[in-house]
Amino acid sequence: MKFLSAYRQQKNCEAEGVFVVEGVKMAQEALKSGWKIRTVCATAEEWNAMDFFAHNGADEVYEASREQIERLSSLRSPQGVWMLVERKTENGERRAESPFVLALDGIQDPGNMGAILRTCDWFGVRDVVCSHETVSCYNPKVVQASMGAIFRTHVSYCELAETLMSYKKHGFAINGAMLDGEDAFAARKERPCVLVIGNEGHGISPEVAAVIDRRLTIPNIGGTCESLNASVAAAILVSGFFRA
Amino acid sequence: MKFLSAYRQQKNCEAEGVFVVEGVKMAQEALKSGWKIRTVCATAEEWNAMDFFAHNGADEVYEASREQIERLSSLRSPQGVWMLVERKTENGERRAESPFVLALDGIQDPGNMGAILRTCDWFGVRDVVCSHETVSCYNPKVVQASMGAIFRTHVSYCELAETLMSYKKHGFAINGAMLDGEDAFAARKERPCVLVIGNEGHGISPEVAAVIDRRLTIPNIGGTCESLNASVAAAILVSGFFRA
Repeated sequence: MKFLSAYRQQKNCEAEGVFVVEGVKMAQEALKSGWKIRTVCATAEEWNAMDFFAHNGADEVYEASREQIERLSSLRSPQGVWMLVERKTENGERRAESPFVLALDGIQDPGNMGAILRTCDWFGVRDVVCSHETVSCYNPKVVQASMGAIFRTHVSYCELAETLMSYKKHGFAINGAMLDGEDAFAARKERPCVLVIGNEGHGISPEVAAVIDRRLTIPNIGGTCESLNASVAAAILVSGFFRA
Repeated sequence: MKFLSAYRQQKNCEAEGVFVVEGVKMAQEALKSGWKIRTVCATAEEWNAMDFFAHNGADEVYEASREQIERLSSLRSPQGVWMLVERKTENGERRAESPFVLALDGIQDPGNMGAILRTCDWFGVRDVVCSHETVSCYNPKVVQASMGAIFRTHVSYCELAETLMSYKKHGFAINGAMLDGEDAFAARKERPCVLVIGNEGHGISPEVAAVIDRRLTIPNIGGTCESLNASVAAAILVSGFFRA
């Protein structure tokens, strides 16, 4: 089992094109998703509970002690299941079926990224394009915080300004969450469109800002707070596009 | 300096009626807030930068090495300032000026609680009433994630169902975020009102649910996701009450 601890390091996961999935709930999501499962470690207890054998499909299967799983885990409260799942590479190209695309320009916090993917999943947003500065969607904390959304969302990494230009050429309006824009609650919501969310500290980068057609600002009604949490701002704006 | 490490434990902070505030940004918020600052530790570097002496008002002031502050800190990336600020006790009574009140019924994750307070601050929601099961607003991770909102929000802990009944008697409509309610985007937004957000895993408790007049559900458009992150759901619903 010890050789698997190499996968605690992101660079090894990346080199092998896999990512870590932990916990019973997330393991069930992985099984349901149809993504290729390379390795499963589970305690005898969870093993029976989950009826892995009925689903099968994993290349390697190990029974592990709780202590062994704790050594593999990057969670504060490790659970009885640890898996390696194969990554999928998305190329960021426009997919015809998507009238609403979310773009992330440098989101850094894994908890924010996971919550954003979960929000996308809730509203049926399947396409997320990210700048190369954005945290990896396969970071273990992102995967866990996504609550399974990672398996249902096409996340791609690209030169974001270029990709947005290409969307624009195909008739997409490019909206950006910014502090100096028009009232996001009152703004017209054109489709098809992209919504861009910037970095937690610095917002949208200048080269991406140059491509934006409509700057959206959530009204700062309290007037005492400098900014919203990035996943909160994303959720308020995304939900605005899906209101009746 | 060593005696201050007792304040790494929540129970000691609680017993003395103080809470920990860390980092330059949050220290500035504390100074601006007018809350009573009991103790300040800062590195020589931050000390000059922040011009603490010009503001003063702290009972005890220490210059500390970076290592000393790292030992006090509960942050992953400790910054050069660590403070103890005196708590304020709110009694949860209805304040005449508040037409919109947020109620938290068992929010557990400090990051969620902090993000929710930040959202309240953004929208000018000044009154937050919490069940006793809700994480303390003075938990260091809540304080940090609130980005200063803690100083601008009246947070009280109470028997939530009773408090909601009292609001109801004063003409407040009690709204609750639930998975089986009416479309939150279409629902009438009466004022004055309370919005209740439940626990991350179990939602709103039965005794609080019994007091709710209007169950609000954010439309699950994707249909593949079981729930939203609690701070995200709170933000979408709160923002709905503040749309033009």
